[in-house]
Amino acid sequence: MQQAIAILDSGVGGLTVAKEVMRQLPQEKIIYFGDTARTPYGPRSPHEVIEFTHQIVDYLLQFQPKMIVIACNTATAVALDEIRARLSIPVVGVIHPGARAAIKTTQSGKVGVIGTEGTIKSSAYELALRQISPHIQVVSQPCPLFVPLVEKGLFRTDQTRSVVEKSLQDLRQIPMDCLILGCTHYPFLSDVIADVMGPNVTLISSADETAREISTILYHKGMLATSNPMPVHQFFCSGDPAMFKKIAQTWLNEQIRVTPVVWQVPHII
Amino acid sequence: MQQAIAILDSGVGGLTVAKEVMRQLPQEKIIYFGDTARTPYGPRSPHEVIEFTHQIVDYLLQFQPKMIVIACNTATAVALDEIRARLSIPVVGVIHPGARAAIKTTQSGKVGVIGTEGTIKSSAYELALRQISPHIQVVSQPCPLFVPLVEKGLFRTDQTRSVVEKSLQDLRQIPMDCLILGCTHYPFLSDVIADVMGPNVTLISSADETAREISTILYHKGMLATSNPMPVHQFFCSGDPAMFKKIAQTWLNEQIRVTPVVWQVPHII
Repeated sequence: MQQAIAILDSGVGGLTVAKEVMRQLPQEKIIYFGDTARTPYGPRSPHEVIEFTHQIVDYLLQFQPKMIVIACNTATAVALDEIRARLSIPVVGVIHPGARAAIKTTQSGKVGVIGTEGTIKSSAYELALRQISPHIQVVSQPCPLFVPLVEKGLFRTDQTRSVVEKSLQDLRQIPMDCLILGCTHYPFLSDVIADVMGPNVTLISSADETAREISTILYHKGMLATSNPMPVHQFFCSGDPAMFKKIAQTWLNEQIRVTPVVWQVPHII
Repeated sequence: MQQAIAILDSGVGGLTVAKEVMRQLPQEKIIYFGDTARTPYGPRSPHEVIEFTHQIVDYLLQFQPKMIVIACNTATAVALDEIRARLSIPVVGVIHPGARAAIKTTQSGKVGVIGTEGTIKSSAYELALRQISPHIQVVSQPCPLFVPLVEKGLFRTDQTRSVVEKSLQDLRQIPMDCLILGCTHYPFLSDVIADVMGPNVTLISSADETAREISTILYHKGMLATSNPMPVHQFFCSGDPAMFKKIAQTWLNEQIRVTPVVWQVPHII
């Protein structure tokens, strides 16, 4: 099935999912939307995040995608069920794939989760983990400073290192054998996070795991693209296209074209 | 949904899937069938393997399972599509999960596959890998002596070491960064296989990966078991129940009860 997979995020974070989809499913065409004008979603109210997510989904539906991927943990936590109920195509979030990967990885049953305030406040990871495996012990911690760093392209600076160290100083004292990067922006910082957490903690990228589950679901629904060796992806963002393009091209390691989108509904900008 | 997951294999190999399902989905009840009277399936004709698989599925349907797992690569290779077409419940095989995990894991794009003669002859892994990622390079090798070793409980003997070394001596000369254990019996030998292949080759267990995909599919279909803290599993085998029980209890690290099943159709025994 040659229709595109539509991927949305509050900004550049969902590019970590997009990159893995390109690598694991090289025949799939991607349409990406980064809501960079309104990032970060983390501190916003659930009501606002739900409204934004519906708006982006409506925008993406004009391209008749075969699947919607909510590649934003904050939006997944509050809007996934509503969007899924509304659409007839598969809608994939990023929380359950990360939870399932952590359950597969952990030997001690002690799992850490970091994410935005919105994601952590929703307890979405705890609920997803305990729904499947009731005895898992979960420690979670919001890291509100990470997304703004990534949206500015600051991945490996001294400032980044210092922010990551301070944000994780309590968490690294708690025994755990894996840590879920419960925000798709965080893989941009994974080198620094891994270094701070030490070698005994396996990082689980909700982005990488989601790409694999997209593959699983498309296969089971008979919706995989075939005979499509050179798909042409499309990128949209609501904020500064130059900054988005710079970060995206560095992360994806390829040239892309970015189309700016200006929201027409002033009260939600 | 509290109905059981039914898992079938030619013998004890599918216990590697069952163990991972128990670990990753501790609230799910399992009904397991090992066709130990007719193991190994690897050297048998596709026609025969298909007939056996239908027969076991018919047996398992009396328990009204919510899902059938064909935890045998040989049977998946030749019978999955037929069984899936016949039933209205989800039917999961072990080949695509292993293929997807290899695609996620490989950085070099060079993947090895070992399996029974039947699995390797079917080219099922090559087809699954190339359907998704056409440029993957695949080298495959049948290891017909491995299943009989496992069915005799010989996991770490000198004879096992010697058989594994001889079987893999050509394959280990070929560059690859991951090797799919394309037979659910092989994780019983994974220590020895890992040692022979060396530290630069990541082993992919089709068993572990299948357990994770079972979790994904049950979640997306709203079929996960909940509030079921102590499921009681059931085990059936067509051959010597004492040998099956011994291997199963060692592998699963728990006491089980095994019910012997005698096939009533002599011509296929």
